[in-house]
Amino acid sequence: MKLLMVNPNISENVSDLIATEARRAASKEVEIDVLTAPFGVAYIETRCEAAVGAYAVLTMLAEHYQGYDAVVIAAFGDPGLMAAKEMLPMPVVGLTEGALSSAASLGARFSIVAISRRIRAWYRETVEMHGLHGRLASIRCLEDAPGDIGGIQADKAEQLVALCNAAVQQDDADAIVIAGAPLAGLARSIAGRIPVPVVDGVASAVRHAETLAALATRPATLGSYAPPPQKDWKGLPLPLAKLIGRN
Amino acid sequence: MKLLMVNPNISENVSDLIATEARRAASKEVEIDVLTAPFGVAYIETRCEAAVGAYAVLTMLAEHYQGYDAVVIAAFGDPGLMAAKEMLPMPVVGLTEGALSSAASLGARFSIVAISRRIRAWYRETVEMHGLHGRLASIRCLEDAPGDIGGIQADKAEQLVALCNAAVQQDDADAIVIAGAPLAGLARSIAGRIPVPVVDGVASAVRHAETLAALATRPATLGSYAPPPQKDWKGLPLPLAKLIGRN
Amino acid sequence: MKLLMVNPNISENVSDLIATEARRAASKEVEIDVLTAPFGVAYIETRCEAAVGAYAVLTMLAEHYQGYDAVVIAAFGDPGLMAAKEMLPMPVVGLTEGALSSAASLGARFSIVAISRRIRAWYRETVEMHGLHGRLASIRCLEDAPGDIGGIQADKAEQLVALCNAAVQQDDADAIVIAGAPLAGLARSIAGRIPVPVVDGVASAVRHAETLAALATRPATLGSYAPPPQKDWKGLPLPLAKLIGRN
Amino acid sequence: MKLLMVNPNISENVSDLIATEARRAASKEVEIDVLTAPFGVAYIETRCEAAVGAYAVLTMLAEHYQGYDAVVIAAFGDPGLMAAKEMLPMPVVGLTEGALSSAASLGARFSIVAISRRIRAWYRETVEMHGLHGRLASIRCLEDAPGDIGGIQADKAEQLVALCNAAVQQDDADAIVIAGAPLAGLARSIAGRIPVPVVDGVASAVRHAETLAALATRPATLGSYAPPPQKDWKGLPLPLAKLIGRN
Amino acid sequence: MKLLMVNPNISENVSDLIATEARRAASKEVEIDVLTAPFGVAYIETRCEAAVGAYAVLTMLAEHYQGYDAVVIAAFGDPGLMAAKEMLPMPVVGLTEGALSSAASLGARFSIVAISRRIRAWYRETVEMHGLHGRLASIRCLEDAPGDIGGIQADKAEQLVALCNAAVQQDDADAIVIAGAPLAGLARSIAGRIPVPVVDGVASAVRHAETLAALATRPATLGSYAPPPQKDWKGLPLPLAKLIGRN
Amino acid sequence: MKLLMVNPNISENVSDLIATEARRAASKEVEIDVLTAPFGVAYIETRCEAAVGAYAVLTMLAEHYQGYDAVVIAAFGDPGLMAAKEMLPMPVVGLTEGALSSAASLGARFSIVAISRRIRAWYRETVEMHGLHGRLASIRCLEDAPGDIGGIQADKAEQLVALCNAAVQQDDADAIVIAGAPLAGLARSIAGRIPVPVVDGVASAVRHAETLAALATRPATLGSYAPPPQKDWKGLPLPLAKLIGRN
Repeated sequence: MKLLMVNPNISENVSDLIATEARRAASKEVEIDVLTAPFGVAYIETRCEAAVGAYAVLTMLAEHYQGYDAVVIAAFGDPGLMAAKEMLPMPVVGLTEGALSSAASLGARFSIVAISRRIRAWYRETVEMHGLHGRLASIRCLEDAPGDIGGIQADKAEQLVALCNAAVQQDDADAIVIAGAPLAGLARSIAGRIPVPVVDGVASAVRHAETLAALATRPATLGSYAPPPQKDWKGLPLPLAKLIGRN
Repeated sequence: MKLLMVNPNISENVSDLIATEARRAASKEVEIDVLTAPFGVAYIETRCEAAVGAYAVLTMLAEHYQGYDAVVIAAFGDPGLMAAKEMLPMPVVGLTEGALSSAASLGARFSIVAISRRIRAWYRETVEMHGLHGRLASIRCLEDAPGDIGGIQADKAEQLVALCNAAVQQDDADAIVIAGAPLAGLARSIAGRIPVPVVDGVASAVRHAETLAALATRPATLGSYAPPPQKDWKGLPLPLAKLIGRN
Repeated sequence: MKLLMVNPNISENVSDLIATEARRAASKEVEIDVLTAPFGVAYIETRCEAAVGAYAVLTMLAEHYQGYDAVVIAAFGDPGLMAAKEMLPMPVVGLTEGALSSAASLGARFSIVAISRRIRAWYRETVEMHGLHGRLASIRCLEDAPGDIGGIQADKAEQLVALCNAAVQQDDADAIVIAGAPLAGLARSIAGRIPVPVVDGVASAVRHAETLAALATRPATLGSYAPPPQKDWKGLPLPLAKLIGRN
Repeated sequence: MKLLMVNPNISENVSDLIATEARRAASKEVEIDVLTAPFGVAYIETRCEAAVGAYAVLTMLAEHYQGYDAVVIAAFGDPGLMAAKEMLPMPVVGLTEGALSSAASLGARFSIVAISRRIRAWYRETVEMHGLHGRLASIRCLEDAPGDIGGIQADKAEQLVALCNAAVQQDDADAIVIAGAPLAGLARSIAGRIPVPVVDGVASAVRHAETLAALATRPATLGSYAPPPQKDWKGLPLPLAKLIGRN
Repeated sequence: MKLLMVNPNISENVSDLIATEARRAASKEVEIDVLTAPFGVAYIETRCEAAVGAYAVLTMLAEHYQGYDAVVIAAFGDPGLMAAKEMLPMPVVGLTEGALSSAASLGARFSIVAISRRIRAWYRETVEMHGLHGRLASIRCLEDAPGDIGGIQADKAEQLVALCNAAVQQDDADAIVIAGAPLAGLARSIAGRIPVPVVDGVASAVRHAETLAALATRPATLGSYAPPPQKDWKGLPLPLAKLIGRN
Repeated sequence: MKLLMVNPNISENVSDLIATEARRAASKEVEIDVLTAPFGVAYIETRCEAAVGAYAVLTMLAEHYQGYDAVVIAAFGDPGLMAAKEMLPMPVVGLTEGALSSAASLGARFSIVAISRRIRAWYRETVEMHGLHGRLASIRCLEDAPGDIGGIQADKAEQLVALCNAAVQQDDADAIVIAGAPLAGLARSIAGRIPVPVVDGVASAVRHAETLAALATRPATLGSYAPPPQKDWKGLPLPLAKLIGRN
């Protein structure tokens, strides 16, 4: 099985974190490739940056999707997720989507722990997009703006543990989602210090993508996830134009 | 990895269907055992039968859970699911839970196709319990009461295909969940005749349980999925009393 | 009019509290019998214990319902309620159901005051089951695990009064529901110290059951509260098998 | 026990229907007085007429409430209900409120059968006001404008029965609410022809008011149902000014 | 363009505040008349007072609506709004309605800042009536009962600014609605001290009414905003009777 | 006042329709410029095309926003709307946003009439994004795929009128939104044939943008609509990089 992961951000060191956790989490027989966005910003906190990231995701996927069994969009917030699900003939999973799929089984209510105040609105709306806001206990976050995004989990581990425990004790979270690709892998290392299950978005998304690939359902040819009807286009990268434009 | 599946009904031929589809869907290294309820009814359609099934599930699990990495409650409607999640130290997945986890990734909205009119209220409430009713397009069902429950998918295949297609065309379902253990495996055989992904509850639950086991999160010791506080008890089967009573 | 109350717990002293408050609250002409569960735990705090209690409720009711005009399931959290409504030909009311019916008339929003932290998740889900979560202001609770469950209202009266007042002043509750059969009768004794109406689950459920019996509507023969379709069964107590199995 | 019922409409023949059904439904010891609105319209179908009816209700109640143990606002749609709950020191119940309290116990989902197309929006919003729209299966209605409002249940009985049965068979209603004071008493006479419980608003409201009076909770002095803070006023009927104005 | 504004309260000094802010906010070509309720209370805080105000609104509008292009009901809480929309052939806007229309464009979530604790329940229910409670971050309020209602914004400016900032910083409001006609104009004067947009109900409602008048859509003759079907009436002011009664 | 409208599609003839209706609807003093997307597809029906359109919108706006008082994103479905609200210091309005602002005042519930089946899912999700799905009566659509998108309103006028009337009569819509820039102006020409108000997205959005500009609220510097925190970037068009990247 071959899995393509796309990082909607331009940070190579975050792509490395993603790749490491993804390979640790995946079944042995899964081959994983990770692409980094050729344009965009260092990390996504806002709807504006997510719109840029979504377009980067679509252009990367259009060029590279062939030969893969499933795709993971490797940013919490799932930029371009529904668009990619329409566009591609194989399963596409986002980090939030994967994390919620795990968290919703491991707790009646779950909290999200995030890297900045600003990022919370976008995460809340992503949970709403997935229809699971009724089960969201809280979103807790670091207060300071992130400095070196690749080093954030080392720098802030104690604060992040404290946020997890506050979510359990004060917000009644039954499970914790550690959010954001820059925190990939943290869930494993702090699990022993939190009294409820701690969910990693990368690991969950990889495994959830494996499941969908293994189920081998056919792609939709009708309904809202069928490929976009082909129509006139202009100025698109050719691989993208081939998928959504009239040829 | 060892997976325990419990059929909350007394129908051995349904347990056989479950076992066959489960083994076909699981990863190669997964060992699967299927238990049939020692008491209860032939199949569950109502909240009343689900309450009986839930107790049967808890008694079976209390006696047999040890040594397994994950548990699947093998009836759509997930009788006893939240109770078992509290009681046991490993992941527990229900057929509805597993199916929704797949369907919510494969479509923006999904429909459930079921074996009887009566069963719909219970299924609707199960989807509400999981918090995903906002994404449910419809529940469509066979009209006649089921006869031989083990033979229903052979007897009613054409009607079930028609229900799936009606859900896509009239209810705007982007994915279809074939509901009920007696229909285990049908999704595979009819997939080619439905223009959207068709989800099997047994296959989805098995794979979702594998994912949760692989993620290896720790069991909750706080929150609402921690084990029930031990207290005085009376008249319970001993294995169950050991798990929830004061010893 | 004859009313059957079933305590889903094994605590005889709680049954005594229930009986005392029920007789004080009921109309003069109502005869009340209270049964205590023959198996189960001392009191119910979790979904797991509620599943055990639900089965105890169904077995008690199947054996004893005949000759009664209405039934009350005398635990907050309403274990087995929807199941019993299907199974029996007379009205069945739960303590939460009765309390919400009063509280929703006495306040735009209401809070629940409960005996333990752990019990809150189950209560919240019960309110959701009844569809009234939009009117729930908060659930407040005692922090310490209950000791002698029969003596809790005497031991903790001051703390419970403080919780009620906090719900009014901080959570904007217009009415307070004192939750849990072990607190039956407390609402009367503390009413003078709380600036909003205080609702007793036992008293409300008894009166609400009287109302439903007096309205004398016919039992459903169609829809999701009609009796479960009869089918093959195994290993059930005979009175229960007679109600839900094929004879 | 003394119960005051106010008809927000000017139709004396509807008041007679209300009084007849109320007395048939009430406990023997209950004395019932029914007042007809001194101003307004023949029957209420719209938000506009309901606003007029609400003011009529408040003026009637301010003048006459003293000496009663509970009040019923005897129009489906509950004009002025929340306002009266604030203003008066005893329980106040509306016909929709009472009917929903019964219907929500007798069915998982219920339908409302109404006398005109136009009236549906107001009823739907009333159910939403009570927070129970999640349990509303449908609102079905007569198509023709009502002629003689006092004679409508005799004239349209067959059509109303057909609407009830359609709600059960097509909308999955587990219980039916016959809506509107002009249909008071119809539920009893047609119950045998409908396969689920049929709820009468007048009978339910009377019994629910009895329950609230019997529970003898104290009136709110804090929260949103406490009496309106007294303030300067002008041009109000004196009894109303005494209750809500600065004296 | 001619705009009629009706103050549902009897406070002439509040009408003056409304008129001043309305004229400052309106397009140059708009003529504005402001009427003060001939009966009622000094300001509206409760559902009870709102019901009185709604009737005052309907009687004022019925007498004076002719010749105007649009109407504004100039109290936050929108007393009689839906009723007036049905009754009149031109657009009718409430202060809450107008404010929400602005706030929902200026922020993903918004908070309301209000003049008293008591008023919050009514405001919350008004936001629910408009269907926008999903975007309400919080309602914050002054703690003390208002003294001179006309002078409240001068007396309490500092406290109101602090409430706005608390809503932004603690409740995650992206925009603030200054609620209540007595605070008309305050938004302009404090805007520089709040880090998010501050919305004035009067200014928003006036501009929103202008928009609706300019769009020149036709009045409804079907549906729930069509005029109430004419019927027998009694005791109504003649202008009101002409609009809703059978002539 | 200067208004910038951006058409997220590449269809110049749709931009002409937009410009014509916008100038007809705007106040006299408003100057309007309309830009057409330099890349993308002929019209947007899917989430995938909307993601492309969103990026086109951001790049156009970043280059051209300076000197305008407000911005309208001129496609129903509002591609890039929330992103643009964050990015720019002036009000930004989408066609759906503007249309809902009008429709929610003109009807208790409204329907959307659209140009293709496929487009409905995207529109439904846009209404959900705005939080107004509770007031959506239905989305009705043309069945055939659109041919010449610029000529669709002439070609399909009769079918569109029939859809509007069906929404009123069968779905209980109190107002109709004609959706999609290719239908700009149609609302005016068919208004006389529909018994409820018919809302044009372009006209509503232009007027709503005028209102927001006139209110002259300050841009957010805190909260989720403040500008994105500046950070490292790569490969973005320079005007966009200036707005969201670290310089």
